[in-house]
Amino acid sequence: MEIFHTAEVLSRDEIAHVQSRRLARTVKRAAKSPFYKARLAQTGVDPDSITSVDDISRLPLTTKDDLRESYPFGMLADEHRELVRLHASSGTTGSPTVVYHTDNDLRTWADLMARCMFMAGIRKDDVFQNMAGYGLFTGGLGIHYGAERLGCLTIPAGAGNTARQLKLIRDFNVTALHIIPSYALYLAGVVAEQGMDPRDLPPRIALIGAEPHSEEARRRIEEMLGLKAFNSYGLSEMNGPGVAFECEHQDGMHLWEDSYIAEILNPETLEPVAEGEVGELVMTTLTREAMPLLRYRTRDLTRFIPGECACGRTHRRIDRIAGRADDMLIIKGVNIYPMQIEQVLLAVPEVAQNYQIVLHREGFIDQLTVRVEIKEEFFVEDMRALGSIQKRIAGLLRNELLVTPRIELVEAKSLPTSDGKASRVVDMRDKQG
Amino acid sequence: MEIFHTAEVLSRDEIAHVQSRRLARTVKRAAKSPFYKARLAQTGVDPDSITSVDDISRLPLTTKDDLRESYPFGMLADEHRELVRLHASSGTTGSPTVVYHTDNDLRTWADLMARCMFMAGIRKDDVFQNMAGYGLFTGGLGIHYGAERLGCLTIPAGAGNTARQLKLIRDFNVTALHIIPSYALYLAGVVAEQGMDPRDLPPRIALIGAEPHSEEARRRIEEMLGLKAFNSYGLSEMNGPGVAFECEHQDGMHLWEDSYIAEILNPETLEPVAEGEVGELVMTTLTREAMPLLRYRTRDLTRFIPGECACGRTHRRIDRIAGRADDMLIIKGVNIYPMQIEQVLLAVPEVAQNYQIVLHREGFIDQLTVRVEIKEEFFVEDMRALGSIQKRIAGLLRNELLVTPRIELVEAKSLPTSDGKASRVVDMRDKQG
Repeated sequence: MEIFHTAEVLSRDEIAHVQSRRLARTVKRAAKSPFYKARLAQTGVDPDSITSVDDISRLPLTTKDDLRESYPFGMLADEHRELVRLHASSGTTGSPTVVYHTDNDLRTWADLMARCMFMAGIRKDDVFQNMAGYGLFTGGLGIHYGAERLGCLTIPAGAGNTARQLKLIRDFNVTALHIIPSYALYLAGVVAEQGMDPRDLPPRIALIGAEPHSEEARRRIEEMLGLKAFNSYGLSEMNGPGVAFECEHQDGMHLWEDSYIAEILNPETLEPVAEGEVGELVMTTLTREAMPLLRYRTRDLTRFIPGECACGRTHRRIDRIAGRADDMLIIKGVNIYPMQIEQVLLAVPEVAQNYQIVLHREGFIDQLTVRVEIKEEFFVEDMRALGSIQKRIAGLLRNELLVTPRIELVEAKSLPTSDGKASRVVDMRDKQG
Repeated sequence: MEIFHTAEVLSRDEIAHVQSRRLARTVKRAAKSPFYKARLAQTGVDPDSITSVDDISRLPLTTKDDLRESYPFGMLADEHRELVRLHASSGTTGSPTVVYHTDNDLRTWADLMARCMFMAGIRKDDVFQNMAGYGLFTGGLGIHYGAERLGCLTIPAGAGNTARQLKLIRDFNVTALHIIPSYALYLAGVVAEQGMDPRDLPPRIALIGAEPHSEEARRRIEEMLGLKAFNSYGLSEMNGPGVAFECEHQDGMHLWEDSYIAEILNPETLEPVAEGEVGELVMTTLTREAMPLLRYRTRDLTRFIPGECACGRTHRRIDRIAGRADDMLIIKGVNIYPMQIEQVLLAVPEVAQNYQIVLHREGFIDQLTVRVEIKEEFFVEDMRALGSIQKRIAGLLRNELLVTPRIELVEAKSLPTSDGKASRVVDMRDKQG
């Protein structure tokens, strides 16, 4: 078998050894941050007492709210001088989250990403087109650094502009892509519309991920674009892409256990589930310098796939994400909390008390519509005035969420009343089949 | 004096020596590309005969059209396997241009960029926010790699979303920015509108450039944002940013002569102008492996500023760009040729024969409006139908140019007839004063 790095085939004993050594170092480092210094003290954990991966259950859990509350500097375990990058989540009204990186952190991230790409069959000779948005979104720069590390000719195409994407693919004989599933389906539609035969397009591999999609959607992408599509798992708190990826067998995603300790816990009892059962994925960074995270609750539901993988890699595989343990929505690769939408809407003077967030599915892909009640005095017959309110709300939500939901304005008191944020989310996806 | 690299203070003799050595190597390397192999043979230049910087005048000139005609692979002097990046210009209908980089090329580029930033006063301790668009536009990744090389905590904010930009600036105590001048003036306007005192904002340095702007615009940016703004020069054919930058004295831009040979030629006679006179800047790469360029005609008009700089750096300074020797327009940092606009318009069925490209200035910044004649049968009173044509044209132009010009639809035969592309460009900038 071909591998990118010898770490991919460590024995399980060796992995446990590496994890123990790195966990001990990580906890000591984390204890330098204001947040963990206090948290470890509160929970009575002496950082020096953590010497083995078996000690992990003694460590406190970390939540998204902990990250929000310690924004912007509370999780920082590094002297400012060594930092070279930060990525922050969207949002100007809510509390965003931020992840910091040292130069070593970026190098480790690029190495892990290059391993993932190699595992999916991408080689130095491939021409790689990165169709994710760059900037603060980790999917752009994260994948980009990995592709350059692997040594691919890398085209930083960014998101959107389909005519140009197709021109780049053809002109430079692009053999591998990174693309979010919803855009892959759209691109495939354009290819079909233009009467092109997907077998005439050079790409043979696509990396997909970053948003929920079904196995059926993956097969559809593969068929319509004439390539193999590899599923991936990542989250910005754990760097972004590069956490877990499928190998050639496309049967679960190998999670790099020399860089992360992964636990699957029952989200209610917070105890480990039985081997192979679904629970909440909880992750600890093992190599991050600037901002180590201990037992971070991802809120993503998955399970470890039992048994060994035919590819020979020893790192355990997680299954396709089965859902979320909280109310977070993922639309076009972007994480969205209903709270963010509420905060934006309530700051608009024309908006009445009530709103509704409707999730539906179009062509395998989740879409978001926000229904907004408008106060009686503004809900006039003048379409132009309403259009301008609609446009303004769309702009404010785009700035906050970084995706543009559809906006429907409705009369005051026309939506069903509800008494919680979560109950304002209407999920039409299952009803559509 | 503090410098980033000892090359900045080489004696003039040492610079000439480095240039001679690197030029000889560059010509040999260029001769491996299909384009230069043929061009050098045609012009009877034996690559081995080029041994000194004084031989430069014997080399053939290279033009933008040469790059277009050799698209996509004709300028490539490297085995494909060593390439790790390409940047391409906009355009799906015209012939774009492309620049390739090896890993060494990216490293050299990042080093030059880091030198520029250091020269403008930025240090490892600074928090640096890059407000340029990422992706194929070189201003994003080019500056980004330089900032990480220098060791700044780098925020890849990307373009747009002013509320978020300001939040990042304040939350992370950003001390240095990269921002295009038009957006800097817009941002300054928002700061003023919100009643903020610019002295309360942490940034002390802004890197500006990428689009024409006056000295008055720079002073306005400095005053409104309460910082020092440094002018820069770069073009995608010479990597992008990192070619020439102002030092603390803000009196001309030091051009890195250990990496580029710069000549100022009379654009008609193609002979060197007298010392200190304005002419066309012609540049030769000295360190690029993947795609060396010999005597590339930038079409930018400038002059060498005579005398030594008080900062102690020995690399000559070029003056603010005085104009263009061709019909290229630069709008919001993007290069636009009238031909590109024509190609898009003529493919739209509703468009009649004639159109007009109007350049005007708003708040020191160049803006673009395209007036388009619509065929009689489509020019109806139905505002919605016209609005939809307008929207479609705007979308097509945005995809082609990567900026969105204003579109005005007018009746057929209402625009003055003209007989050339260039004469369709109406320049209102000087009339506005």
